[in-house]
Amino acid sequence: MSLPASKKKILIVIMDGLGDRGCKELGGLTPLQATDTPNLDWFTKNGISGTCDTVDIGVCPGSDTSHLSILGYDPLEVYTGRGPFEAAGIGLIGRKGDVAFRCNFSTCDDNLNVTDRRAGRIDKPDTTELVKALAGIKINGIEAVVKEGTEHRAALILRGNGLSAEVTDADAHDVGPLRLSKGKVPEAEFTAMVLNEFVRETHKRLKDHPVNKRRAAEGLPPANILLPRGAGSFPNIQSFPEKYRMKAACVAGVGMIKGICGVCGLDVIDLPEDCTGGVNSNFISKAKAVMKTLEKYDFVLMNIKAPDVCGHDGDPNLKCSVIQRLDEMAGYFKDNFRDDMVIVFTADHSTPCSLGDHSADPVPITIYTPGNVKDVAAVFSESGCAQGRIGRIRGIHIIPICLDLAGRTEKFGA
Amino acid sequence: MSLPASKKKILIVIMDGLGDRGCKELGGLTPLQATDTPNLDWFTKNGISGTCDTVDIGVCPGSDTSHLSILGYDPLEVYTGRGPFEAAGIGLIGRKGDVAFRCNFSTCDDNLNVTDRRAGRIDKPDTTELVKALAGIKINGIEAVVKEGTEHRAALILRGNGLSAEVTDADAHDVGPLRLSKGKVPEAEFTAMVLNEFVRETHKRLKDHPVNKRRAAEGLPPANILLPRGAGSFPNIQSFPEKYRMKAACVAGVGMIKGICGVCGLDVIDLPEDCTGGVNSNFISKAKAVMKTLEKYDFVLMNIKAPDVCGHDGDPNLKCSVIQRLDEMAGYFKDNFRDDMVIVFTADHSTPCSLGDHSADPVPITIYTPGNVKDVAAVFSESGCAQGRIGRIRGIHIIPICLDLAGRTEKFGA
Repeated sequence: MSLPASKKKILIVIMDGLGDRGCKELGGLTPLQATDTPNLDWFTKNGISGTCDTVDIGVCPGSDTSHLSILGYDPLEVYTGRGPFEAAGIGLIGRKGDVAFRCNFSTCDDNLNVTDRRAGRIDKPDTTELVKALAGIKINGIEAVVKEGTEHRAALILRGNGLSAEVTDADAHDVGPLRLSKGKVPEAEFTAMVLNEFVRETHKRLKDHPVNKRRAAEGLPPANILLPRGAGSFPNIQSFPEKYRMKAACVAGVGMIKGICGVCGLDVIDLPEDCTGGVNSNFISKAKAVMKTLEKYDFVLMNIKAPDVCGHDGDPNLKCSVIQRLDEMAGYFKDNFRDDMVIVFTADHSTPCSLGDHSADPVPITIYTPGNVKDVAAVFSESGCAQGRIGRIRGIHIIPICLDLAGRTEKFGA
Repeated sequence: MSLPASKKKILIVIMDGLGDRGCKELGGLTPLQATDTPNLDWFTKNGISGTCDTVDIGVCPGSDTSHLSILGYDPLEVYTGRGPFEAAGIGLIGRKGDVAFRCNFSTCDDNLNVTDRRAGRIDKPDTTELVKALAGIKINGIEAVVKEGTEHRAALILRGNGLSAEVTDADAHDVGPLRLSKGKVPEAEFTAMVLNEFVRETHKRLKDHPVNKRRAAEGLPPANILLPRGAGSFPNIQSFPEKYRMKAACVAGVGMIKGICGVCGLDVIDLPEDCTGGVNSNFISKAKAVMKTLEKYDFVLMNIKAPDVCGHDGDPNLKCSVIQRLDEMAGYFKDNFRDDMVIVFTADHSTPCSLGDHSADPVPITIYTPGNVKDVAAVFSESGCAQGRIGRIRGIHIIPICLDLAGRTEKFGA
């Protein structure tokens, strides 16, 4: 008898930077070990658990590479450098064939000598005004699209036929004469020429801009040139909804995560204002948005940035208090659980407070859906989850495991 | 001091479809968790244990792909489709260069219009008689070999020079005019021509066959044409005995398993009649046949189909009673253990009763041989074995681990 396969929905809850190492301030425990988490533990007790190297064993992941992995794209194969993902991270999502660059708003003199690579760390709203003046640049049939990021940062996409990412930076990474871009291969000469022409055009358009006149009057360095670096092609990846035949959405507060998910073809959901992407974010409000999104979608990736911020700040006590609020959020998911749902609790990487930065330590993972095996793991922590039957997996394994539990896998063979 | 290495024999006991998920009927336990298995547990307590994804993490295996994996052949590399393995499964074991097809005995009219693709679900012994009439067909130097399967099913092997599996089905998968095969690439035109000629020849030989005359008299549709589909080349794999330098045999009741093992070059052992391949099979009788086979062979793969049948039937209580009898069989192996033997207890895949079909859930594995490490795993189950030191492995890892424990591995390096 073959029972009718009912397809379940999948929710992956990524508690950003959650993994940690022993903290002196916590008597050698990790923040997860030191915090009482009855709701997360409930999922661990009733589900299957393990540890996960989101990219690979001993590889220290960025937020971009780890999220790609968790979405089932091996970054060792598809990651084409920071350019495209930083661009996507500030909302500039390109398509196959586009070449993306990270840029700085910089200061130069009339002879194009760079005098300040960060234009006095100019920020919004000035950069937003300046970007407007760069709209519609087109050089030899190639469109240039610019968007401002945080502080002096911006992103550039070149779009058109015959482009190549094999060009050097139009940025000397130091003050001094403007460094022109060159093609690393003959096919890239055209792109380098377009890029250099673009840089000159930004100076033409920005040097007498009202924002810069005002800045000069205030004794601030004008942001009168844009310097692109880190060329990268948008990766040629099959979109997530097509690859896994699921309608998919992303619920995240942070630009880069929204960007990665956008590049992978997930719909990015607008959030209430109290979902800030910071430590003060309202996790319950975000969880409500997730459950609402799940009504219309087969798959949701949820990212909560707060624990990562605590790790970068090196503040284990703050991380413990964030974890306590994350556990309340897990309680919300428990109380509002849909039986037609597979839920995953994990992190994109560890951000040990003692390091103040990411590490390659594997992260805990618990997967729960009604009617599955229970294993012996009983505590959601770096060591507790390691007791479970998932063992040690890579990030790219998460989706295949969930698809099977969701009744969405086809048999290989007979 | 390097002691002389004595080579051990290897026995892999595959309890087909043994893995499961929590069953409502068993209070949320799996059949393995719900059944007392002192003998299997003895092996777990005294051996090493873990979990195994027979094909790969998150891949839902067929019985063919999983057995290939367990025999050390990565199906992601060597699996060439169902044709060759279905043919092998009904005892038609081809060799490199052969192209195999699944076929239906069908009914057509005098103008080769197909009117019933299953010829009224004709079965043995009629099909056995009809196949005799198809012996010795040879077209442009290509031999055609046909064998009947269950009901209206049969398999065809084309053998000779210049064949290709890149041909479309000679089967419209519907009633109506005969659909001829075409080459998908120019090199396959010859094969398509031979295949179409073969189909016409089957009609010539079958249309006035006494079996069909009798069927017509009884008002049953005649099986007067054979329609081939699902072309696949026999995989180009090194034979198991050559690859691992072991004399190897298969003790199984089910055609497909015998077929896979036959394709890999294992000797297929004839079994007593009480080894049925079904739920009612006599496992002790089969274990005796295994121990007798081990006297003459270095390697035996044993398959017991019964737990899979219970999973497909969605019957957890039946699965528990089968597991109890499997444990008695494990007791027989314990009592009749050869010290020069490595024994493996595992499954080819999970067949959760709640699904009634295969799943990608990893299966438990215990490996025992005297003088090896004991680990902390103490219960042979989905969760119990996960405590052990084997960790989470793939099916293709089983043979290398066993070869090493059997003193059959050569050092890599100095």
